[in-house]
Amino acid sequence: MSDRAGDIEGAIEAAARAARRAAPALAGLAGGARSALLRDLAAALAEPAIREALLAANREDLARAEREALEPVKRARLALTTGKLESLADGLRQLAAAPELLGAPTLRRELDEGLVLERVPCPLGTLGVVFEARPDAVPQIAGLALKSGNALLLKGGSEALASNRALVAVIHRVLAAHGLPTALVALLERREDFAALLGLDALVDLIVARGSTPFVHHVMASTRIPVMGHAEGLCHVYLHAPCDPAMAARIAVDAKCSYPAACNAVETLLWHADAGVALDACVAALAGAGVELRGCAATRARHPGIAAAQDADWDTEYGALILAIRRVDDLEGALGHIEAHGSRHTEAIVTDDAAAAERFLARVDAADVFHNASTRFADGYRFGLGAEVGISTGKLHARGPVGVDGLLTYRWLLRGRGQVASEYGPGKRAFRHRDLDLE
Amino acid sequence: MSDRAGDIEGAIEAAARAARRAAPALAGLAGGARSALLRDLAAALAEPAIREALLAANREDLARAEREALEPVKRARLALTTGKLESLADGLRQLAAAPELLGAPTLRRELDEGLVLERVPCPLGTLGVVFEARPDAVPQIAGLALKSGNALLLKGGSEALASNRALVAVIHRVLAAHGLPTALVALLERREDFAALLGLDALVDLIVARGSTPFVHHVMASTRIPVMGHAEGLCHVYLHAPCDPAMAARIAVDAKCSYPAACNAVETLLWHADAGVALDACVAALAGAGVELRGCAATRARHPGIAAAQDADWDTEYGALILAIRRVDDLEGALGHIEAHGSRHTEAIVTDDAAAAERFLARVDAADVFHNASTRFADGYRFGLGAEVGISTGKLHARGPVGVDGLLTYRWLLRGRGQVASEYGPGKRAFRHRDLDLE
Repeated sequence: MSDRAGDIEGAIEAAARAARRAAPALAGLAGGARSALLRDLAAALAEPAIREALLAANREDLARAEREALEPVKRARLALTTGKLESLADGLRQLAAAPELLGAPTLRRELDEGLVLERVPCPLGTLGVVFEARPDAVPQIAGLALKSGNALLLKGGSEALASNRALVAVIHRVLAAHGLPTALVALLERREDFAALLGLDALVDLIVARGSTPFVHHVMASTRIPVMGHAEGLCHVYLHAPCDPAMAARIAVDAKCSYPAACNAVETLLWHADAGVALDACVAALAGAGVELRGCAATRARHPGIAAAQDADWDTEYGALILAIRRVDDLEGALGHIEAHGSRHTEAIVTDDAAAAERFLARVDAADVFHNASTRFADGYRFGLGAEVGISTGKLHARGPVGVDGLLTYRWLLRGRGQVASEYGPGKRAFRHRDLDLE
Repeated sequence: MSDRAGDIEGAIEAAARAARRAAPALAGLAGGARSALLRDLAAALAEPAIREALLAANREDLARAEREALEPVKRARLALTTGKLESLADGLRQLAAAPELLGAPTLRRELDEGLVLERVPCPLGTLGVVFEARPDAVPQIAGLALKSGNALLLKGGSEALASNRALVAVIHRVLAAHGLPTALVALLERREDFAALLGLDALVDLIVARGSTPFVHHVMASTRIPVMGHAEGLCHVYLHAPCDPAMAARIAVDAKCSYPAACNAVETLLWHADAGVALDACVAALAGAGVELRGCAATRARHPGIAAAQDADWDTEYGALILAIRRVDDLEGALGHIEAHGSRHTEAIVTDDAAAAERFLARVDAADVFHNASTRFADGYRFGLGAEVGISTGKLHARGPVGVDGLLTYRWLLRGRGQVASEYGPGKRAFRHRDLDLE
């Protein structure tokens, strides 16, 4: 190990240790005090002087992005705007108003007279979150961590470094104003910092990794800390007859075009042979919106102008204005295609056939399954979670948009009067196992 | 890869694929039908002919264990008795009567008029469970898997092979009587079978690994499938003054002696200097029960007959009738010792000081934290979960005794009327985000 590597590891370990030590001060606050913190953070984002400082820092990042010819999609993600800051403040206020989950038992059970068990939510402890060059993620993730009583080490995409620093400075100001240690939220600036964090399994309780699927797998393979992966989404919209063509076109355009780089954007449109008219409406609307279409043979037989899709298209997350289109024989065909090619993220059916819709909702194994709604609704803010730390594509702990719930664990607390286990059993005392009301 | 290894991999992949294919038939049953299945399994375990066959198979295993001079603790674990079979049937009936969690929404939220979100529990899919040579785990784990709608691949300790085969045969008989595929529950017989299973991350959703901490870590390092680890427990009992000596002694003896090999048995007794009389009662009772005691200098100053503890004792899970004893300066000292040496499994305080107890309950970071109760209550059956698939020492997904809850994930279902995400936002439609009653 070089001296420099040793220095980095030492510094990151110190930051993680300080964050961990600071966490009980946050978790020990009454819920109202944590909510006040979030409201003050929302207010700070709206203060003209702070807002101007944030936008100025972001202009630095944007200027460098322009010099380095960053792709337009990534520049859009990087840009902070007054509108984005307003949405962020809104989300923080929503989060402040959300019910307090910490400390409120989710189960209370009398095992026997005078022997009462409770299951009580508590913070995970210390979180490490790595995410794309998108500065709006900083207040969102910090808001969720503060609401849930967790300490936080953040590593954002380096293109957003100036913006992230400015945002973390605002968070530190608000923490200090509330008498809390600023070590609760730490910004890691270099790739090596995050690599060092992955080695600290005694100090960090959860890694949230947002980014490409290979990146998420790389993180998972590089640490013994549990990883919640927010990887790519390969989402489908399936048109099943009878199907309103105008609704189909509106959903297809929103799902593809409103933010093509988002993980909840659609990549493949599936259509039942009887839903050809709805397909036609989608093709016209998507072509009009500048989307490049790639179809199977049956699709091209109906729309000869469409390019031919290759096998690889069914497995590609374009993240751009490109859409693959495939005809399926029936609902089972759609379910089979989604099972084989979907990423278990978000899948939607558009149909007026209520029974087919319910079959689709019951059968698709994905985090989010929608009927007559755009895949783009798969989002913590839209789901009313206040914000999201990511969209989990794993099945364990948290699935889909991850809000406060996903940053909590629980403890089982048992209060007795000296009972021992060997008093109970066949021929001895029996457990009562009576659930008590939660107040 | 040798032909034989290839054969094994092919066979295990086929078993996993068959289990996965069979799962929807189970998950699609009404809850009542899954409960009837469990009641029939309970009844089968009580049928004289079946019971005799099970005990006969178990005698085979016990005879081999005797020939191979298996340790007495392990032989006790291996033995099936009429009493154990009765407890198992009891647990299955408790599980059958437990509320149905599958399919009942845990959240229903109106995002906007005619746009309703539900969060609905569903099975994880296919489980792989590896566990010690303890045949009673077979019906417990199978019961939880069947209740939760999951397919199951089981690998038990090889010393229990004849017993496990006999138990799985009973389960298959009951599945077949209910018209369900027997592929839902498969027994893996060889170590290589389980190794092959770990490679099937596209087919298996969760591995539950029970065993020693190094074994659990080995499993985690050998697979990309999420692993729920049930590792060792290094549990403490802390005596804080004022403390009833008789209660302290009763709890210490139960926590150490009722099943020393259990993960929820106590390994270290901590005592506050003011709780010396309670310590004396514990020392007398434990010595009387044949427990070997190892103490710190302060403990030995009071009880010179006790052997000297070494540093390693504070980090050792004896799993036997040995107990380490250490004096701490105060509650903070106890918390510090537990933080440094505990395994986040189960920790107990014995005291009449309610404020100290509540501080202990609030501060200890462990799955189970108890006041005036034996650590041995940390158990799915005793907690009223019907049974347990293991006791999770991780913080994610499930913590402590894992029952049906821990074998479920959820999906977000959204039903709309053609809404699209770009209709909403600043200056456009606002979300309503109103929680609806769960019926």
